[in-house]
Amino acid sequence: MATRKAEINGKRPFRLKEYTFSCEDVPRLSCTDPEVDRLISNEQPVVITDTNLVSSALHWDLDYLGKNMGDGMFTVYSSHTNKFKYFDDKKGNNVKNFREPMRHLDMTFQDFAKRLCNKKPEDESLYMQQTLNDSVGRRIVVDFLGFNWNWITEQQKKHNWGQLTANLLLVGTEENITPSHYDEQQNFFAQIKGKKRFILFPPSQFGCLYPYPIYHPHDRQSQVDFDDPDFEKFPEFKKAAALEAVVGPGDVLYLPTYWWHQVECVQGTGLNISVTFWYKCGPTDKIEYPLKPQQKVAMMRNIEKMINQALNDPKEVPEFMQNMVLGRYT
Amino acid sequence: MATRKAEINGKRPFRLKEYTFSCEDVPRLSCTDPEVDRLISNEQPVVITDTNLVSSALHWDLDYLGKNMGDGMFTVYSSHTNKFKYFDDKKGNNVKNFREPMRHLDMTFQDFAKRLCNKKPEDESLYMQQTLNDSVGRRIVVDFLGFNWNWITEQQKKHNWGQLTANLLLVGTEENITPSHYDEQQNFFAQIKGKKRFILFPPSQFGCLYPYPIYHPHDRQSQVDFDDPDFEKFPEFKKAAALEAVVGPGDVLYLPTYWWHQVECVQGTGLNISVTFWYKCGPTDKIEYPLKPQQKVAMMRNIEKMINQALNDPKEVPEFMQNMVLGRYT
Ligand SMILES: [Zn+2]
Ligand SMILES: [Zn+2]
Repeated sequence: MATRKAEINGKRPFRLKEYTFSCEDVPRLSCTDPEVDRLISNEQPVVITDTNLVSSALHWDLDYLGKNMGDGMFTVYSSHTNKFKYFDDKKGNNVKNFREPMRHLDMTFQDFAKRLCNKKPEDESLYMQQTLNDSVGRRIVVDFLGFNWNWITEQQKKHNWGQLTANLLLVGTEENITPSHYDEQQNFFAQIKGKKRFILFPPSQFGCLYPYPIYHPHDRQSQVDFDDPDFEKFPEFKKAAALEAVVGPGDVLYLPTYWWHQVECVQGTGLNISVTFWYKCGPTDKIEYPLKPQQKVAMMRNIEKMINQALNDPKEVPEFMQNMVLGRYT
Repeated sequence: MATRKAEINGKRPFRLKEYTFSCEDVPRLSCTDPEVDRLISNEQPVVITDTNLVSSALHWDLDYLGKNMGDGMFTVYSSHTNKFKYFDDKKGNNVKNFREPMRHLDMTFQDFAKRLCNKKPEDESLYMQQTLNDSVGRRIVVDFLGFNWNWITEQQKKHNWGQLTANLLLVGTEENITPSHYDEQQNFFAQIKGKKRFILFPPSQFGCLYPYPIYHPHDRQSQVDFDDPDFEKFPEFKKAAALEAVVGPGDVLYLPTYWWHQVECVQGTGLNISVTFWYKCGPTDKIEYPLKPQQKVAMMRNIEKMINQALNDPKEVPEFMQNMVLGRYT
């Protein structure tokens, strides 16, 4: 696969894979720029460079976290490949012969840190993905309280979002990739260590990304393998056009609800640490027509859920869907 | 098109078109046969030969009806072809350049009778389709009261149907065809004069019949032209397998809800008169899985209605449907 060099923030150059689709840059702006407000209001992604959202955590590394994270158990995924494709194990039985693409482990942060340090190239890749909770040590609590809650709470209010639901701590190595999917919440994604590259597609390109059926363990994930797209099965993927952002320590990416994102740790940028700030969507405004793409995605999800519930058997869903649509709305 | 001779009830032979699909006969049974109950309970069609449902009307002809139907206005459709494809003119604007396949006229029964008598072969075909109401003359009221309400009300109660909603009087000539569609009510179809041939498909073959989108004026009609099926556009129609019934004076066909029916007046059998008895469906029993085909059809209709209402623009519906299904449930 082709790669290209990129230089961001005057730091050392690194290699980024090139894909079959075009990539435009997400704007990088200061939090004092009024354009930031406009973009967030319009639910468009933006990298904000100087929020100081996680300045109090920029000293985090394996050693410090290992010493201060406490003895709680952390969720770690282990993968034969460098891809960590999320799956919902409650939906595993809905699909015949579903093979879990990664393993779920539980370990203390110290055990995780040890395994990362001793990791040989042929070992499985590891990715910690743990919601921060109150089992962490005192110094982490202090760092956490030092987050710029003023700024982020102001954003939450200004944009009429619901409550903060979780902060996910992500710790991984530089080859790790989270394949393309969408989430159902607003997200400020704060980078702490290493660099991450985001490949983004707007909700209007739902039809190009071919998410798995809603009953599938990979619900909300794209079926398209960006490294080798099957254009026969997924012809609309030819029309996909991405936005791209590379974030480094201190950067915050606003990742709007229902935006597709593949997240790649950037080769050559070492240990990778991030924290997400997930907020519930706000109440919907007065309905205006035509509906927004994200409203249509929400509607599709509800219809799919309803059909699954009514038929009471995921095996009956594809034929039902086909009968409703093929030769009628195609 | 190939034809075959048929002989029913020992009456004179007539010609029936042959189609691309197979046709099995609907059972013909006496109303005393317990099998009739079983078939109606299972919502399967049956021709019942001796109900005496419309015995009091078997003397109806153009002359008698013209003299006794009163001066009310009757709905008559006029068609360049012999096909009378129903359309909902409230939905006409949902489809660009929709052309109405027949004209709607209003005239007294006597004017209709005159036009039928004076009709030359090159004139448009005519089909009266009028709900019986209380504008009719005294003798028709007497005939109507003489219908076998005992028998039919017993059926309604036994099978837990809702109320009688309408009796449609159908008067047409022997070339008239009503193309394949389904209705949303239970129907006892009573033949009075001439013969009608029914081509029936069960609701389980919904996927073979390709009904128009729900917002289309031809909602509930098949897009497939039985005389020249487009197997490229409608490949599943190859799997369609019909039931067939020919009814003559005194016969009653039980036509269950959501069963597809094309209704053809039979060439050589002269003036054609029928009356339908439409009943609302009963309350649904306790839901059992898997759902019945007719429950799935009802569900699809509700989903389609909901999507149309939510998007508020029929032009947006096809893309929405495609995005939800193509490459995902196909
Ligand atoms: Zn995500
Ligand atoms: Zn009908």
